[in-house]
Amino acid sequence: MAGNPVAERDAMARARELAARGPRGVNPQVGAVLLSPDGRVLGEGWHRGAGTPHAEVDALSRLRPEEARGATAIVTLEPCNHTGRTGPCAEALLAAGVARVVYASADPGEASSGGAARLTSGGVDVDRLDEAEGEALIADWLFVQRTGRPRVTVKWAQSLDGRAAAADGTSRWITGPEARAHVHRERSAHDAIAVGTGTVLADDPLLTARVDGEPDAPQPIPVVFGTREIPAGAAIRQHPRGYRTAGHELERELFGLAAAGLQTLYVEGGPTLASAFLRAGLADRLTIYLAPTLLGGPRTVLDDIGVGTIDEQRRLTVTRLEQLGRDLLVEATTGKEH
Amino acid sequence: MAGNPVAERDAMARARELAARGPRGVNPQVGAVLLSPDGRVLGEGWHRGAGTPHAEVDALSRLRPEEARGATAIVTLEPCNHTGRTGPCAEALLAAGVARVVYASADPGEASSGGAARLTSGGVDVDRLDEAEGEALIADWLFVQRTGRPRVTVKWAQSLDGRAAAADGTSRWITGPEARAHVHRERSAHDAIAVGTGTVLADDPLLTARVDGEPDAPQPIPVVFGTREIPAGAAIRQHPRGYRTAGHELERELFGLAAAGLQTLYVEGGPTLASAFLRAGLADRLTIYLAPTLLGGPRTVLDDIGVGTIDEQRRLTVTRLEQLGRDLLVEATTGKEH
Ligand SMILES: NC(=O)c1ccc[n+]([C@@H]2O[C@H](COP(=O)([O-])OP(=O)(O)OC[C@H]3O[C@@H](n4cnc5c(N)ncnc54)[C@H](OP(=O)(O)O)[C@@H]3O)[C@@H](O)[C@H]2O)c1
Ligand SMILES: NC(=O)c1ccc[n+]([C@@H]2O[C@H](COP(=O)([O-])OP(=O)(O)OC[C@H]3O[C@@H](n4cnc5c(N)ncnc54)[C@H](OP(=O)(O)O)[C@@H]3O)[C@@H](O)[C@H]2O)c1
Repeated sequence: MAGNPVAERDAMARARELAARGPRGVNPQVGAVLLSPDGRVLGEGWHRGAGTPHAEVDALSRLRPEEARGATAIVTLEPCNHTGRTGPCAEALLAAGVARVVYASADPGEASSGGAARLTSGGVDVDRLDEAEGEALIADWLFVQRTGRPRVTVKWAQSLDGRAAAADGTSRWITGPEARAHVHRERSAHDAIAVGTGTVLADDPLLTARVDGEPDAPQPIPVVFGTREIPAGAAIRQHPRGYRTAGHELERELFGLAAAGLQTLYVEGGPTLASAFLRAGLADRLTIYLAPTLLGGPRTVLDDIGVGTIDEQRRLTVTRLEQLGRDLLVEATTGKEH
Repeated sequence: MAGNPVAERDAMARARELAARGPRGVNPQVGAVLLSPDGRVLGEGWHRGAGTPHAEVDALSRLRPEEARGATAIVTLEPCNHTGRTGPCAEALLAAGVARVVYASADPGEASSGGAARLTSGGVDVDRLDEAEGEALIADWLFVQRTGRPRVTVKWAQSLDGRAAAADGTSRWITGPEARAHVHRERSAHDAIAVGTGTVLADDPLLTARVDGEPDAPQPIPVVFGTREIPAGAAIRQHPRGYRTAGHELERELFGLAAAGLQTLYVEGGPTLASAFLRAGLADRLTIYLAPTLLGGPRTVLDDIGVGTIDEQRRLTVTRLEQLGRDLLVEATTGKEH
């Protein structure tokens, strides 16, 4: 069976739009569209988060009995094959009499994968479409599946010579307004934002994402790493999403954040916490703002990152280099990205 | 009188070529061309360094008696008006009966300037042409005239986080071959090259300029700053041009280098010397090679540069930003350039 290429391609694009309506969390964002044999849209669905129906089942639930018989299901992710809080989607599709299933990204889960094989053995025609786009849609979730932890971006701003502040600790403003606006957009693009107690005690940041012209920009949840107490009057206590705390064992804490559905973490410093993430090999991406200024002195933007001799240097792969006002933005990966 | 615009423009370009044949030193490079009233080249000359005839006089000396009468002199620098080791050029041109003088750059010297006025009062038609090109030709010499010292470029190579070496001091190679080749071209473009005794003792560098495909590239003279003795077997003792030594009083030492005819100095480090030049406000230009790597640890590429609080930061004006292989070249001025 060949399907209806034009209708299926359109339906897959639509399924990705539907997927994006769902929340980011422990489960992936998935969208589904059901097509009649002649290519009409019969129903749409998307996953609304853990404990709610999967996208295919959500779409099927909108049809009349028997309406799905002979239909084609277009799904952004391979239908699952395991019984969790909801039944396996592969079985639901078979039971509904769906004749053809087209999916984009494969399900990497140990327990949940195998849906495509189950469908095939059940006599359903199974095909794939837009694999790359499907994986891009849930790239962060896939990262969590592979590593068990969120994808970590470590960010800092520095003078050209690698200082975070002048000798007396003053640092307003090393970078210009364009770089600072960029930081707020970056915050908003992550699920959680990390600082150490040092930064909370020194700067008392609110840690909201203030994106120009977007009052409803997504707010990452703040995570304060460290054992010192957060003062009663700390601004972070007013954060609209509250805040989490975490200890010194970074990898273990990251596993906990992933389990709470946080797929990406934006580490905003200071130097102690940034260095700890680098030392532990837990910085996947770096976002560095270089201001055209020199400071010298003791306030280095990193301290010990575990490089004793030159062969241990942390070579970066620069993925982006851009002038932001008078500053320079360097985005890089550490090569530790899995 | 109007002169012959086409012939004079060609002659001025030729005069700049002739000027460049002369040596860089305490005197400026100057070229001169003598034109007949109908625009034919009568003679050419250039200055061969302190104590030798100036360019105009050199050109006049190649003519038959009376041949210069009514001629036009095209000179890259305003003819001088003072009697040094050679007589004033303005008088020589008047005595030869030159009818018109066209020059490019004005003479900034307190004692030597005023030549144009002297010529005018002597009845000579004086005009200017290609002022910017004339000044560019002797920009470094003009800098020395204004400041009394060489123009200083401070160069260093660093990891993105501002380290010169790993914790144990090892640093080969932070930057790639393209950046290292660029350093050799830069060396060759300066009159002198400075290092501290720390670098001599740690690295034992030869400090020659090795420019690919140019075995005869100009060799700057090395200057070692510091009081510690240079070991008997030090490579620098084999430098084809010998070497100079200098103490800690940087400005005074620079005056001495200028008096010796060195118009530009390339400060190659290490961190102590580079920081001292910055602290003293004696770094006019910076050439920084940023390698896409992180090192952390104690070996910062600058130490104290005199910035106690953020308002004292040394803002840079970036004049060039270029990818050199995997590294990034940042050229900047400190705003201290006179
Ligand atoms: N340039 C920039 O981009 C930037 C960004 C943010 C902040 N800053 C500046 O950085 C300064 C604060 O620096 P900082 O280094 O003290 O702050 P920090 O890195 O925010 O906090 C340091 C604290 O993090 C905690 N921590 C958690 N896990 C850790 C681990 N695995 N290893 C080590 N420490 C861990 C420790 O807290 P406990 O001691 O409580 O256990 C430690 O004292 C402020 O002046 C701020 O302005 C600069
Ligand atoms: N990353 C780079 O681009 C780069 C470039 C060059 C060298 N390096 C590295 O730098 C290391 C050497 O560092 P370093 O800082 O010891 O070397 P340095 O800066 O070459 O030499 C320091 C010495 O300079 C002398 N000096 C002269 N005038 C001074 C002044 N006004 N203030 C202070 N000192 C003055 C002092 O010598 P006295 O004590 O003898 O009086 C001082 O000890 C080596 O490991 C080398 O590999 C790196």
